[in-house]
Amino acid sequence: MTLPLSIGIDFGGTTIKIAVARGGEIIQRGTILDTQKLGSPEAMFDAISTVVAQLREAHPEVAAIGAGLPGIVDATNGIVLELSNVPGWSAVPLRQILHDRTGLPVAVDNDAKSMTYAEWRFGAARGKVNVICVTLGTGVGGGLILDGKLYRGSANGAGEIGQTSIDFNGRPGVYGNLGAMEKYVGNHQIAERARELYRQAGRERSLEDCSPKALATAAEGNDAVALALWKEIGTEIGAALANIVWLLNPDCIVLGGGVAKAGELLLEPIRAAIRARTMPAFFENLQIVPATLGNDAGIIGAAALGLEAVPATRVVH
Amino acid sequence: MTLPLSIGIDFGGTTIKIAVARGGEIIQRGTILDTQKLGSPEAMFDAISTVVAQLREAHPEVAAIGAGLPGIVDATNGIVLELSNVPGWSAVPLRQILHDRTGLPVAVDNDAKSMTYAEWRFGAARGKVNVICVTLGTGVGGGLILDGKLYRGSANGAGEIGQTSIDFNGRPGVYGNLGAMEKYVGNHQIAERARELYRQAGRERSLEDCSPKALATAAEGNDAVALALWKEIGTEIGAALANIVWLLNPDCIVLGGGVAKAGELLLEPIRAAIRARTMPAFFENLQIVPATLGNDAGIIGAAALGLEAVPATRVVH
Repeated sequence: MTLPLSIGIDFGGTTIKIAVARGGEIIQRGTILDTQKLGSPEAMFDAISTVVAQLREAHPEVAAIGAGLPGIVDATNGIVLELSNVPGWSAVPLRQILHDRTGLPVAVDNDAKSMTYAEWRFGAARGKVNVICVTLGTGVGGGLILDGKLYRGSANGAGEIGQTSIDFNGRPGVYGNLGAMEKYVGNHQIAERARELYRQAGRERSLEDCSPKALATAAEGNDAVALALWKEIGTEIGAALANIVWLLNPDCIVLGGGVAKAGELLLEPIRAAIRARTMPAFFENLQIVPATLGNDAGIIGAAALGLEAVPATRVVH
Repeated sequence: MTLPLSIGIDFGGTTIKIAVARGGEIIQRGTILDTQKLGSPEAMFDAISTVVAQLREAHPEVAAIGAGLPGIVDATNGIVLELSNVPGWSAVPLRQILHDRTGLPVAVDNDAKSMTYAEWRFGAARGKVNVICVTLGTGVGGGLILDGKLYRGSANGAGEIGQTSIDFNGRPGVYGNLGAMEKYVGNHQIAERARELYRQAGRERSLEDCSPKALATAAEGNDAVALALWKEIGTEIGAALANIVWLLNPDCIVLGGGVAKAGELLLEPIRAAIRARTMPAFFENLQIVPATLGNDAGIIGAAALGLEAVPATRVVH
């Protein structure tokens, strides 16, 4: 059976990306919207509706819409409770708003959960049952598939892997939570740690030259500081993931986001740390793999979750 | 509808306890068996069968049997893969063995999962959807109810809360996992830490006088060392639980086991640590409560899981 078409909306802090998708494939991309320029929520709804209308003109068979947003989303009731870094959003009934403007079934969910759903249905974790999906970027986010279902938690907050602690007396996270993992391995933290390590080695570098991308290039050129730092970072991420492995005994961990582009430089010490910090019965049944859908995971996942809102097109796994 | 009767078997390292239960209530207890004296698995099966037969004579309407065991249990296939502290057990098809000897439907599961199931169905977590159940004793174990279902993980290993780390450079756990929580707050560790603190305060005490029970009594008598130690231990347990809260966003945490008998001495700093280390949206929806079924939780949970093996008596939640 061919999967029906649906529209995915990836709502970011700077851009809103909208596209028509079929399963794991993007069929057509709409104009990218500038979140800052649009300003008010009302202006955003209008602009989104215009792009959706254009895409439906080209693909009238579109059956549903899904939107993934960075923040706390009550997926059951289709309400955006809080939007990270975008003011003016509080308890917005986005599902109803988009449904009123398009007449289509709409699903609304957190963006990390959309991405997790995409990687599980169409990407790196296809066929797995218990999946931990982690995005490594400025912050560290995540999502969970448990017993073959997206797990949301009691207040739609589950999956905050970046807030879990690796040291109960460590660096404070954004909520004062000591040892929050993202305060060790977030984009900015990596750059600052690299600059400090280079300084200690008698080599001054700008923060820009210490970006994860620059550090990956340096490590590939056998730079000792960069190599050592990737190992440290991988160990820290691995330690945080080992806790999740003990707790949830997953069969797959997917690593995505900008920092994960370092590839095996990062994956190898992550795997080593998880192996050293768990037990064979857990590690032998576990795949630790890079995400495969890249920047499209958010759109693809949202589009697929949109279809879940249509009983007739719901996919049974 | 009255729940049917079933038999629960709580298989411990030193004793095997068997009883007839109806829901959360023990109807009749059988003779307690001595695991060490029986020795071989074959002798244990015989002894269990005898007690089961006696109980069924008194209660012929018993519909099923459930057994909870400390170790790794493949609940789907009814096989005990490994039994903690009891030699001679490896890949034992206990479900088939007990079924052959009794003719009844049998369920076999890990003991912490049985206990979790009992506290959720009949105890402290009744009506909750996402539950973390923790047993604080010599070791620290646990079980998870997620989306209203017992969660087992990909290799039946989920719920190993005591092995999760609070410090990625901390004390090694039994698997070499640095910072394993149970190496800070297990029975023996509490006693050793107390003895050391008393020593520093110029007060020599035997290890026996530093048991969790003795420390609870001392704290109730306003002993400064004991009060400070309970606070430290509660903070450490709370830090480990905060990680689980970020990850799973549960609506209930149940604390059981010998150490939890310290009551509010321990619960209060645990609650304070979780509040300080998470965010309001997570904490406001979360109950942190003591277990209510005590030592019977294992039997009651096993008996209830036994009924789940009988399609006609399965309870829909």
